[in-house]
Amino acid sequence: MEIKKHIYVFTKFESFEKETLNKSLKASFEVFFHDEILENMQFQIFSKCTICFGNVPLSWLENNLTLQWLQLHSAGIDPYNQLKNAPFQITNLRGFFAESVAETTLASIMAFYRGIDKLCNLKSKKNWIGTPLRANLMTLKNNKVWILGNGSIALRLNELLAPFHCVVHVSTISELKANIHSASFFEEKAKNADLVIFVLPEIPETTHYLNKEKIKLVSQKTVIVNVGRGSSIDENELINALKNKKISGAILDVTEVEPLPAESPLWDMENVMLTQHTAGGWRDENIGKVHFFLENLKRFTQGEKLINIIDIAKGY
Amino acid sequence: MEIKKHIYVFTKFESFEKETLNKSLKASFEVFFHDEILENMQFQIFSKCTICFGNVPLSWLENNLTLQWLQLHSAGIDPYNQLKNAPFQITNLRGFFAESVAETTLASIMAFYRGIDKLCNLKSKKNWIGTPLRANLMTLKNNKVWILGNGSIALRLNELLAPFHCVVHVSTISELKANIHSASFFEEKAKNADLVIFVLPEIPETTHYLNKEKIKLVSQKTVIVNVGRGSSIDENELINALKNKKISGAILDVTEVEPLPAESPLWDMENVMLTQHTAGGWRDENIGKVHFFLENLKRFTQGEKLINIIDIAKGY
Repeated sequence: MEIKKHIYVFTKFESFEKETLNKSLKASFEVFFHDEILENMQFQIFSKCTICFGNVPLSWLENNLTLQWLQLHSAGIDPYNQLKNAPFQITNLRGFFAESVAETTLASIMAFYRGIDKLCNLKSKKNWIGTPLRANLMTLKNNKVWILGNGSIALRLNELLAPFHCVVHVSTISELKANIHSASFFEEKAKNADLVIFVLPEIPETTHYLNKEKIKLVSQKTVIVNVGRGSSIDENELINALKNKKISGAILDVTEVEPLPAESPLWDMENVMLTQHTAGGWRDENIGKVHFFLENLKRFTQGEKLINIIDIAKGY
Repeated sequence: MEIKKHIYVFTKFESFEKETLNKSLKASFEVFFHDEILENMQFQIFSKCTICFGNVPLSWLENNLTLQWLQLHSAGIDPYNQLKNAPFQITNLRGFFAESVAETTLASIMAFYRGIDKLCNLKSKKNWIGTPLRANLMTLKNNKVWILGNGSIALRLNELLAPFHCVVHVSTISELKANIHSASFFEEKAKNADLVIFVLPEIPETTHYLNKEKIKLVSQKTVIVNVGRGSSIDENELINALKNKKISGAILDVTEVEPLPAESPLWDMENVMLTQHTAGGWRDENIGKVHFFLENLKRFTQGEKLINIIDIAKGY
């Protein structure tokens, strides 16, 4: 009789997802759900598992010689990018969130342009202003757009923008790396841009990519959008630029600290939209993650190449 | 010397638009701005004008034998559809609002799906909820969409929906007229629709097109959208359906009475978005109207066919 492999499920799931996992796995695997294990037993049980689904504490992974494969439940790979030469494979959910993030990106840009945020606040006050609002509204058609990043979200967003006939430039990460110290590169791309959209992974070169020097080169009409990582933008400099009306607005799904601290001036700024790191979410997100894991598990069992193996050296 | 034709500008413009009109017209026309004329002189001056730009009171137009051309500043033609056999031409702004209305339509649908309305309200309370919000979000991709109406707004909206790979059915007005008493026609189109979008002109056949009987055939998951005319939907029945959770939500740019009365239950409903008849507006709306009028005036002067002549018999 074959000894069943042990799977540790760290991701917090509801009963529907757990039942789906149990039904698919119980014949061939022993499955342990983190939140069903006594706290003082969790690490011990994890240490005997060959497969892990979910973003366990980094410290659990140090010196682990049993684990063969770690499936993250995120697209971001920090802090696991610190695991150089890990003896196990790491896969992430790259691409999994592309549709919903791209949709929130377009939704929030269009809401900003069409005054939906103001209209929602007016509704809660039962205040009909109507016609006078119209003179402040913008349209997306023919806009100049710079997308920083060329991952699945950036590419999907570019598809969604197609019918608006925007002038879009998508910068690959290598293009950004190659021009990291070139002010003229940044200026040329940012100049006259209506939208500058950050969809960057967290790597050393992207940390505070939008800094004090670069933000000065951004046009006054520009709306800055960040649906990648909070670290890509120096938030204090962004806040200064907004305060001094050096840029037109900011749409942030991610911030440097989350939850955004109550004392952040971003909360009170009219020309700021905060989507609270919800862009990756949708109704079927969790069951979708389960199905992704099961597909990769099938490949793992059959000795095939896994989907979304992380290249730690590249950092994404 | 040729006698200058008189133009009456009823539309309320700011000085920028007035200057543009004056600069273009003063050599060949006498221009009268409604808001610059003493109230007791307005009708008298209007009566001597051969050209009018703007939606004057209907009563002014009865028995008028001087007017040759009325350029409306709206796409809607009510109440002027009552002018059977008018001795002057009437043109409207059909198509002029297509981009901005289609953009507000997509903006508000996507905001509804991606929870932007809830997020805006949370921002005003400085309340970060984050992750738990994700399970309620929806995506537009692959949705089933029924668009009622095939004017310029409907067609532009259909273009904007293309990258979402929705199953879209666009109903022409003749298709709707031909099936006006067919419950099975309505049921087939509405069945399983995620979105039912009204972009209809105001004609007898479209008044309360969505009535008590039809709304019963709408799926519980459907969001009803109206960016056409408030009269297309029996608002009381819509409110009942929302109250009893027979439909999933409503996005209304137009209502039966505008401004929406303070006592309307729509103000308090969470699954309702109200865009306050702003969909047609954008920053350059008014100067755009001026340029449209000037183009048509050139045609009028040169004896060419005007753009957007209304067919009163058809009603749009």
